[in-house]
Amino acid sequence: MSTSEYPLLRETAQVDAAAVEPLPASSKIYLQGSREDIRVPVREIKLTATPVQGADGSTRLEPNPPVRVYDTSGPYTDPKAEIDIRKGLSPIREQWILDRQDTELLDGDSSEYSRRRAADLSLEQLRFDLKRKPRRALPGKNVSQMHYARQGIITPEMEYIAIRENMALAEAREAGDLAVQHPGNSFGASIPQEITPEFVRDEVARGRAIIPANINHPELEPMIIGRNFLVKINGNIGNSALGSSIEEEVAKLTWGIRWGADTMMDLSTGKNIHETREWIVRNSPVPVGTVPIYQALEKVDGVAEDLTWEVFRDTLIEQAEQGVDYFTIHAGVLLRYVPLTAKRVTGIVSRGGSIMAKWCLAHHKENFLYTHFDDICEIMKAYDVSFSLGDGLRPGSVADANDEAQFGELRTLGELTKRAWEHDVQVMIEGPGHVPMHMIKENMEEQLKHCDEAPFYTLGPLTTDIAPGYDHITSGIGAAQIGWYGCAMLCYVTPKEHLGLPNKDDVKTGIITYKIAAHAADLAKGHPGAQLRDNALSKARFEFRWEDQFNLALDPDTARSFHDETLPKESAKVAHFCSMCGPKFCSMKISQDVRDYADQLEKDQLQEEMQKKSAEFKEQGSEIYHKV
Amino acid sequence: MSTSEYPLLRETAQVDAAAVEPLPASSKIYLQGSREDIRVPVREIKLTATPVQGADGSTRLEPNPPVRVYDTSGPYTDPKAEIDIRKGLSPIREQWILDRQDTELLDGDSSEYSRRRAADLSLEQLRFDLKRKPRRALPGKNVSQMHYARQGIITPEMEYIAIRENMALAEAREAGDLAVQHPGNSFGASIPQEITPEFVRDEVARGRAIIPANINHPELEPMIIGRNFLVKINGNIGNSALGSSIEEEVAKLTWGIRWGADTMMDLSTGKNIHETREWIVRNSPVPVGTVPIYQALEKVDGVAEDLTWEVFRDTLIEQAEQGVDYFTIHAGVLLRYVPLTAKRVTGIVSRGGSIMAKWCLAHHKENFLYTHFDDICEIMKAYDVSFSLGDGLRPGSVADANDEAQFGELRTLGELTKRAWEHDVQVMIEGPGHVPMHMIKENMEEQLKHCDEAPFYTLGPLTTDIAPGYDHITSGIGAAQIGWYGCAMLCYVTPKEHLGLPNKDDVKTGIITYKIAAHAADLAKGHPGAQLRDNALSKARFEFRWEDQFNLALDPDTARSFHDETLPKESAKVAHFCSMCGPKFCSMKISQDVRDYADQLEKDQLQEEMQKKSAEFKEQGSEIYHKV
Repeated sequence: MSTSEYPLLRETAQVDAAAVEPLPASSKIYLQGSREDIRVPVREIKLTATPVQGADGSTRLEPNPPVRVYDTSGPYTDPKAEIDIRKGLSPIREQWILDRQDTELLDGDSSEYSRRRAADLSLEQLRFDLKRKPRRALPGKNVSQMHYARQGIITPEMEYIAIRENMALAEAREAGDLAVQHPGNSFGASIPQEITPEFVRDEVARGRAIIPANINHPELEPMIIGRNFLVKINGNIGNSALGSSIEEEVAKLTWGIRWGADTMMDLSTGKNIHETREWIVRNSPVPVGTVPIYQALEKVDGVAEDLTWEVFRDTLIEQAEQGVDYFTIHAGVLLRYVPLTAKRVTGIVSRGGSIMAKWCLAHHKENFLYTHFDDICEIMKAYDVSFSLGDGLRPGSVADANDEAQFGELRTLGELTKRAWEHDVQVMIEGPGHVPMHMIKENMEEQLKHCDEAPFYTLGPLTTDIAPGYDHITSGIGAAQIGWYGCAMLCYVTPKEHLGLPNKDDVKTGIITYKIAAHAADLAKGHPGAQLRDNALSKARFEFRWEDQFNLALDPDTARSFHDETLPKESAKVAHFCSMCGPKFCSMKISQDVRDYADQLEKDQLQEEMQKKSAEFKEQGSEIYHKV
Repeated sequence: MSTSEYPLLRETAQVDAAAVEPLPASSKIYLQGSREDIRVPVREIKLTATPVQGADGSTRLEPNPPVRVYDTSGPYTDPKAEIDIRKGLSPIREQWILDRQDTELLDGDSSEYSRRRAADLSLEQLRFDLKRKPRRALPGKNVSQMHYARQGIITPEMEYIAIRENMALAEAREAGDLAVQHPGNSFGASIPQEITPEFVRDEVARGRAIIPANINHPELEPMIIGRNFLVKINGNIGNSALGSSIEEEVAKLTWGIRWGADTMMDLSTGKNIHETREWIVRNSPVPVGTVPIYQALEKVDGVAEDLTWEVFRDTLIEQAEQGVDYFTIHAGVLLRYVPLTAKRVTGIVSRGGSIMAKWCLAHHKENFLYTHFDDICEIMKAYDVSFSLGDGLRPGSVADANDEAQFGELRTLGELTKRAWEHDVQVMIEGPGHVPMHMIKENMEEQLKHCDEAPFYTLGPLTTDIAPGYDHITSGIGAAQIGWYGCAMLCYVTPKEHLGLPNKDDVKTGIITYKIAAHAADLAKGHPGAQLRDNALSKARFEFRWEDQFNLALDPDTARSFHDETLPKESAKVAHFCSMCGPKFCSMKISQDVRDYADQLEKDQLQEEMQKKSAEFKEQGSEIYHKV
């Protein structure tokens, strides 16, 4: 049948309406960098004023400064932006890439598979209308941010990131009282009081931070992952054999970044992975990660033994030219580690890990991702794709935590990190999994030691196995801890983990839970400025500025709806008591009396002291003058 | 109008249908103690068998032993029990109390307020049909479990608790392989390999654990709170000025214990607090705690200044004779600490704390709970009510954590602990509040030091202020940590915290979150047997025994419904893949191949070694014999 019988997605696709609603009391502002096209988005939350009773009974309004928060939502939440997912986002990095003069536009896709897809008329209905050709490094060139950093070059991406990360710190310095925060315990991190472009460059050069930013993803708003920066979170999306449409996946993306996902991984294993990815990347202002082995396996009809380096290589190029920013590569699953998992309670639970283990066993050969690691590096640096070295042997149960299979692989990932660095290719390391609380720190310490402080990127860890349906919580507990210890990015877990496919509600619950974990970690590390939002929200709470409390919350909608469930009337939002206690029991109201009393006490003491001084003066007569 | 026009609650009240449904695949068994009436309830979860492929291709079924779990749900989940909330639970402790011959039945209520309520005909409609008179210690007698413990007496309550706490350990010893668990890090706790009645007695005598067990609450199934026992959790219920009926509150109680609340606090501040409490205590198999100052304040129409020792004393007796097992008493809010809160971001947030602060300021006198502390002890020991010394000055925001007001009060609570112990009265200490992760440990350490290891009982702590609507999670992170560090009981926080009144769903979410935190803490402490359930669930997960996985979960209903959302068909529950990955990507399936390979490898190696040995033998000829 002809495709014309069906509507074309590139004509009909619409953005999820919920994703483009501006957040309450918020406006998107842009911080200007050194060049006109460095405009760093920040969400500014406006607050109401505090009514202050004067001594004469009159009330004056004391303004509360707006609070600025790190904003991952992209142009979607900017009412001035024109959003059309059929066109994709504007390529804000394009000129920066062109200016470097080290890339070329290709005539067409280098990947044989991509070309086959492009030629397949039956896919017309699904195709994104991409008018741009793929870009690649000129022969002999390395276009990774790490390569530039090591040349001493501060890229616009680095400056952008410095402004973005420094925003809270700069604000903190201005905010005065509300910026007061506890000194943290960062377990040896080196967080500066000010994030400068030079600091960003230095951390990237050192390998302690990465900037996932494929040259084929010019729509990206640059961000950084490293232990000396704000803790980041990743959300997973992707279809499966059981279904989900392209529009649904794009909706999950825009929904995820609305609530704070710093990167999104497309873990599709179902139909039309190639086309789905194109739509996701073109509409994503955050880095997109993938696990290329999933698609490679699809290409050999799910038979792991049939995987070859050639199929895999073509998949890497296919995805790199689409603009994927980081690849999970399970190159540490070595043949000799595989038997170490045999006595485990839950064997190998990583999909990528088990695919590679099966391949190794079937061929009785070393993992081709390991043997071709240098070849992979060559591809990575031609597009600036970052490694996310996969932990294929991560424990799938508390029982299997920190065993020899897991730590053996981690040491190999450390070895591969150094090999990637020889190519100036950016690397982060994936981590577990299921780990009881008291064994989490060892994971962080081993990773720092063997991987020389390359950023750690962990899934949870889940601190117990007994709560399927609540694994966002079992893992949020572990994520907060490992974030505190130095983990740079936390991969979210949704309530559906182990049970089913997450829907939009689950995605949101996972993201908010992980924003909590990441922020709790920032507070504990003593990240400068991190406590600002807590302080502002607590002040609003104490002063019964209900709307401000909702608006400052990670999830204003839920906070407001929970309040309204108990006290639905508008008047209740200006009430000077809360529904938990009712008007008579309001501790906050009583606290105001305490303040008045303390003020009086201070005045009394002052007066008493003055009277004492005055009495002393009278007693001692003019003695004072005698002394002189 | 005459009461007869209205139906009487004592005739119409019905148990919540959801509370009496047996849990899936579970049966209630009773472990027998030394006397016939010591029957300790345990929930036993039956598991299906694992199909094992034999070498000849045949399949045999390898049975999986049932898993026993600590059961707080009382007779409600026992299909053999007759449940009638109009009659209340059976007084299983009555004979134990009688046997001690140190109490007397009173002619009627000692509390003047109780007598007034009893005489008020307009309350007829609400009244519980209590046929029992209140009981009190004989003059000069002390009926606290601590008093018995210090006399060297092992009470039936202590034996009951030993069996209950030891259950998992005994089972672990029997379970063999599945009992393997990681050694923990308990930060100096002294958890024995076997909990004996003598150990329970010793811990109670030492003050390191408490058994909240009012002699007027004979329906209680005894439990213990202390750092060397399983970490416990508390759920809060109670009406407010904004409503909720007695039946709703009883339903919240039975719902809360169904999901695992070890104690329940009735924090009612609304109408008919006295009658509501009677219904709650009579139907509660777990200890009930209250904050008596709430009701005392109601009695003086909410005017804190009008509170007197006499009103408070009568309230203590009223509640003690109803059977409340522990009282939160804010005796550490001293006049001199109050001004220390004036510069806080959120002042005083404890309701009890702010009431007492207001009273102190209004009268410019020392807190009457402090000045009358010995009088309070006299009441406590006449009924065996335990102290929960309230932290009236706990921080209400991250900014206020660990300040001088908080730690000053904590030191006073330490002083009061020793005074209570002089009376042989049981004590636990309440703790914060809002505390960032890196400042939690100091709370535990200060508490252990100043309160001489009296059990710590904390609210959360919440590790950030920025997520109203998700404070079960912000606090669950902190609760897991402080439980690991040595906190004995965790007071739950629901998603509605700071925003509204929790409904039944919120109660369940709060309980499950806190069961996760408590269990994660038990695992990290290395509590013997704690990992058993994790291991069993993970084994079930690995073997695709879906039903077993659901049934072993903290919340089987949610786990099952999440699974069914994605894969609704019955057949999917026997499917050897899960919905996240689909059939081709199943890592667990691949892992089985790994095991087979490892088995083969082992056999090969064995064979190789044997061949080597055999070759050596041939080479060396009869040399071996020469040596002999």
